[in-house]
Amino acid sequence: MSELGRWPISCEIPVQWGDLDALNHVNHTVFIRWMETARMHYFIACDFTGLLESEGIGPILAGLKVDYSAPVQFPDTITVHTTVTRLGNSSFDMAYRITSATKGDGSVATGTVSGVVFDYDAGSSTPMPDSLRSRIEKLEATGSG
Amino acid sequence: MSELGRWPISCEIPVQWGDLDALNHVNHTVFIRWMETARMHYFIACDFTGLLESEGIGPILAGLKVDYSAPVQFPDTITVHTTVTRLGNSSFDMAYRITSATKGDGSVATGTVSGVVFDYDAGSSTPMPDSLRSRIEKLEATGSG
Amino acid sequence: MSELGRWPISCEIPVQWGDLDALNHVNHTVFIRWMETARMHYFIACDFTGLLESEGIGPILAGLKVDYSAPVQFPDTITVHTTVTRLGNSSFDMAYRITSATKGDGSVATGTVSGVVFDYDAGSSTPMPDSLRSRIEKLEATGSG
Amino acid sequence: MSELGRWPISCEIPVQWGDLDALNHVNHTVFIRWMETARMHYFIACDFTGLLESEGIGPILAGLKVDYSAPVQFPDTITVHTTVTRLGNSSFDMAYRITSATKGDGSVATGTVSGVVFDYDAGSSTPMPDSLRSRIEKLEATGSG
Repeated sequence: MSELGRWPISCEIPVQWGDLDALNHVNHTVFIRWMETARMHYFIACDFTGLLESEGIGPILAGLKVDYSAPVQFPDTITVHTTVTRLGNSSFDMAYRITSATKGDGSVATGTVSGVVFDYDAGSSTPMPDSLRSRIEKLEATGSG
Repeated sequence: MSELGRWPISCEIPVQWGDLDALNHVNHTVFIRWMETARMHYFIACDFTGLLESEGIGPILAGLKVDYSAPVQFPDTITVHTTVTRLGNSSFDMAYRITSATKGDGSVATGTVSGVVFDYDAGSSTPMPDSLRSRIEKLEATGSG
Repeated sequence: MSELGRWPISCEIPVQWGDLDALNHVNHTVFIRWMETARMHYFIACDFTGLLESEGIGPILAGLKVDYSAPVQFPDTITVHTTVTRLGNSSFDMAYRITSATKGDGSVATGTVSGVVFDYDAGSSTPMPDSLRSRIEKLEATGSG
Repeated sequence: MSELGRWPISCEIPVQWGDLDALNHVNHTVFIRWMETARMHYFIACDFTGLLESEGIGPILAGLKVDYSAPVQFPDTITVHTTVTRLGNSSFDMAYRITSATKGDGSVATGTVSGVVFDYDAGSSTPMPDSLRSRIEKLEATGSG
């Protein structure tokens, strides 16, 4: 059986000045936007995006949870790491970990999301196709975990 | 001949806390987002949105110009007023004026955009259909100008 | 002993066109921005904002959890309801419930945040002043709960 | 006399998925946020930010103009180039040019802003200090122009 949670995908994003809010640190919603960008890179890497185009089957976000551990300022560059931690029948969980160039190894925020595999034509959830499941497992196997 | 520039459409939008930037006033890009929202209400009112759905002919933004005259804080409620000021063959101009509940009658920002009528299937600009032109002229005739 | 969780504060916010993402519904981070706006209205109502200005003691967001139950489109108007559900020694929890004019009574999203009372001069958490605690309890007592 | 308009500062920013709007390309306000980030890097490079902290003299945005020439998609990486094109007594102009990794050398958008040197304590515009003027001229002299 394949192992999940091996953090195969990450991306670097420079902080933008407009990410700051009136408290002079990056607004807490921006961390969640960064996680979303990493998620989409993951979906491209496992071709979930291709499945949406060809068969109308795509992911829907059901919920998220974020813990903030350190503020981020401008200028800085953050890295978002992401991994799939659970593959259910028609649902899945992903985890996120954000680090910053100036703050070093400790994470500035961590998060999890739960997603559902959705058939947009039928308008209901659907089992995750085996081909996608297999590509996710292969992608995780390349992780640094 | 019909008159344009009569400001038929406006919408009220409360300032959100997250609209503030590190200088503790509403970030300058937010004013442009407010203008966009008013523009879309205008496009719904003249059924430019319907034309896009039925015939694949819709607006494209070519350029914009904004002048800022006063900062906006939280909490406050702004009103965006908009009007079509020019109807060309396959292009058009719109103007915007933003006022705020706490600042009174003077505008906090004004702007203009130039747009192009675009045939998304053909991938090129196209003359504005007479039916749309007529609806815009009727909408402007209802203005408070 | 005072009761919490009585939902005393709410605010209405019209959806902006730019809130939509490439899936043509309001991006999931926007819901969290709406919750933040309601939170700041709550902090103004209980004068947490005044405490920050006068004594340098203010709230810090430690974590959040959001569940999404229905997509939101443009145009629409949402209402964010918020309440304090727990007052600890130097921490507190708040809950959020978002409804939409077009979707009716059911919530489109719910959320919770955990916050910490922070002394910005000392750089550490601090017990919640009794005066603030009392104002929150009075505010909750006015709720519709 | 020193030459301006030599494009000394640029920064690379990856497109985020959330930058896309319902038309499936990067929303037009995001281009303006990118320009703002480049502007702030310029202000750090010429220490306009230091002047704000030490003497309360900083920039205020008076107006902007943007022309859009090509849509940007996700994923892609853009580069914003910026330069000061005019130094007045208490005002200045800057120009921006955005290119994209996938679109090649042609710009996807260009823009200009006009700014004012503002004394935040006095609440009025103020002549640009010679020291700042000199640093801007030196910075421009390093440009690739």
